[in-house]
Amino acid sequence: MVLRLGHRLPRDERVTTHVCLTSRAFGAEGVIYSGQKDSSLEASVKRIANNWGGEFSIEYEAKPIARIEKMKRDGWAVVHLTMYGMPLPEKVVEVAGKVKVLVVVGAEKVPSEVYELADFNIAVGNQPHSEIAALAVTLDRLQAGKELGRSFESNFGGASISLEPAEKGKKIRRG
Amino acid sequence: MVLRLGHRLPRDERVTTHVCLTSRAFGAEGVIYSGQKDSSLEASVKRIANNWGGEFSIEYEAKPIARIEKMKRDGWAVVHLTMYGMPLPEKVVEVAGKVKVLVVVGAEKVPSEVYELADFNIAVGNQPHSEIAALAVTLDRLQAGKELGRSFESNFGGASISLEPAEKGKKIRRG
Repeated sequence: MVLRLGHRLPRDERVTTHVCLTSRAFGAEGVIYSGQKDSSLEASVKRIANNWGGEFSIEYEAKPIARIEKMKRDGWAVVHLTMYGMPLPEKVVEVAGKVKVLVVVGAEKVPSEVYELADFNIAVGNQPHSEIAALAVTLDRLQAGKELGRSFESNFGGASISLEPAEKGKKIRRG
Repeated sequence: MVLRLGHRLPRDERVTTHVCLTSRAFGAEGVIYSGQKDSSLEASVKRIANNWGGEFSIEYEAKPIARIEKMKRDGWAVVHLTMYGMPLPEKVVEVAGKVKVLVVVGAEKVPSEVYELADFNIAVGNQPHSEIAALAVTLDRLQAGKELGRSFESNFGGASISLEPAEKGKKIRRG
């Protein structure tokens, strides 16, 4: 599960959409987001999930800190992605051993409670870049790349559209 | 080197910034972008590169197709990232063997010439997600993860600010 903190309109519209679609494509079961409620974001993520198959949830949370605390009590390991954290390769084995993982990504400024509450503060490199990139690489490593193979498409059952890998051009299957 | 196609203002402002910063953090030498010229994008990428060290270029190209053709003649292998392409794990060994790699990422709609000109059309999963995520995972795999380790920081010499990995909170070095 992925928690996106501090969504701001209109500034984060597209970046949060990318966070959601990356979460889905890389096998997360859903996204919880906080900050400003955004019905248009929710509708567009649901529409894509319906068309492209599989199960994926999106849910707004007004109180993300309380939600993190609750999920910790419920047994989730909390992984906060931040360029200030520990290098991913040094932590990936330990995190991959957890049964339930909540990956937290911020927008501009993350409250210090998140650093304290996190079981792991993890850096995908200690340079400024993108929470989308950090999320993608983390999910890739936690799953040892299985989301990139052809067989992962079986996660997206019930799709009205899907793709056949192609050397050139586009091979689209409908229905 | 990374080529970002079809930058649109204001729609792609932040996404293209993420493309640039991810390219830099993952060790690319620079970004070429096409679409709308954006001095503010260039200034912000240059400012970050100056503060955080290392060498990184950003350049506008009005004619990206001609540029791809020229770079091919100059010996660059062209890797176009698209959800329609071939699974990354099936191509990564062949691409990693190339000396000069141009990674091409599109915005909304990529001209069909790009699919034809590309030496490799590669999918980071065949589901819709994010060119930022696809770029990050591709650069990560091509470099076998070396951009995530502590020693990669030596690529960012001359920085006025850098970070020390931390389990909690922030360890910032200045000067």
